[in-house]
Amino acid sequence: MREVLAKAAFQLFLERGFEQTTVDDIVARAGVGRRSFFRYFPSKEDAVFPDHESCLADMTAFLEAADDAEPVDAVCDAARIVLRMYATNPEFSVQRYRLTQEVPGLRTYELSVVRRYERTMAGYLRRRYADAEDGSLRAEVIAAAVVAAHNNALRSWLRSGGEGDAEAAVDHALELVRNGWGSAAASGDAGADVDDDVVVMVVSKRAPMWRVVQRVESALGQD
Amino acid sequence: MREVLAKAAFQLFLERGFEQTTVDDIVARAGVGRRSFFRYFPSKEDAVFPDHESCLADMTAFLEAADDAEPVDAVCDAARIVLRMYATNPEFSVQRYRLTQEVPGLRTYELSVVRRYERTMAGYLRRRYADAEDGSLRAEVIAAAVVAAHNNALRSWLRSGGEGDAEAAVDHALELVRNGWGSAAASGDAGADVDDDVVVMVVSKRAPMWRVVQRVESALGQD
Repeated sequence: MREVLAKAAFQLFLERGFEQTTVDDIVARAGVGRRSFFRYFPSKEDAVFPDHESCLADMTAFLEAADDAEPVDAVCDAARIVLRMYATNPEFSVQRYRLTQEVPGLRTYELSVVRRYERTMAGYLRRRYADAEDGSLRAEVIAAAVVAAHNNALRSWLRSGGEGDAEAAVDHALELVRNGWGSAAASGDAGADVDDDVVVMVVSKRAPMWRVVQRVESALGQD
Repeated sequence: MREVLAKAAFQLFLERGFEQTTVDDIVARAGVGRRSFFRYFPSKEDAVFPDHESCLADMTAFLEAADDAEPVDAVCDAARIVLRMYATNPEFSVQRYRLTQEVPGLRTYELSVVRRYERTMAGYLRRRYADAEDGSLRAEVIAAAVVAAHNNALRSWLRSGGEGDAEAAVDHALELVRNGWGSAAASGDAGADVDDDVVVMVVSKRAPMWRVVQRVESALGQD
């Protein structure tokens, strides 16, 4: 029923425009009563993004169980849950992206949804960084960076019409955040001996920090 | 007139609540006609945040003139323009923060405003990083991180009732972003000789990158 309603709604939004479509139009197309619609969707906007609630629930459950993971890795993996929701159905995702671009109300709605993902990630990181200096600050900055990286790659993919490998693009984008903030742990190194831990580096005091980080990574063999 | 309207509106929002106050109430209190209100404010929400438009214009102008600055420093300075708007009038800012917490519509509005600041910063960084690898990605991640850092410090200050030094708190928060992404340039070092540029560092391959960055900063004398 929920899917039938979402599908009917989306068809009508594409045919007539979002603003021009009423809830009455949607229930008529779906062949159900008006109250059925509101049982499943609080508003017309929610019918455009029918999967975000379950995706948020998945992310919350995933992060609640991620106490042993490196924290930045965990939120990057959480972001991938959102990506998969989009990538599973490229045609719908691309059409919806175009619709959202045209309707300010949908963009505002999407902004609120994105903010909820970000808050979910920040809440997890705050918990993991509870004892760290500037834990809350670090949590919010990293969550924002992860969301921005994810959205940059996702938007490029949507703008391209769903061409190419969305997951690879998001992995690449998240890597930028992990390089800045995440664990540099190379998992195969548990038995590395002490010599491996000595790095001699020449760095200019005028180099931007990200370039310094690149040099460190390169020296550590992580690039 | 604009200020008179904003003041009348805000008094009424505090007295009666945001939802319960109509535009008619506001213009009656301000002693002007209804059309005057909409000449200055597209909506009731805009009257709660009367300074964001001019602040956005200030930020845009500031960044347009910031072609010679280190890019991350420039967006950090741009964020400080927003902070000063709040810090100039602590009592109003704190009351408004409390009001915003209570009214979902105002939170959504604020989210859109924050997003516009973020886009302004990202646009500037995209231009500055036009030739850099992953320039657009880097621009959006840094803009999001700067906004998150700024908002973390601003919110703590607002939540505390406007106690303490908001500018120092924001400086501290932005420092975290600059350490990750900005220039590590210590301005007094232009004449540093070559010896100063050699750093010998011992680092565990299992250390998180932010800790490595701390070590590098410490070695470079920038902490």
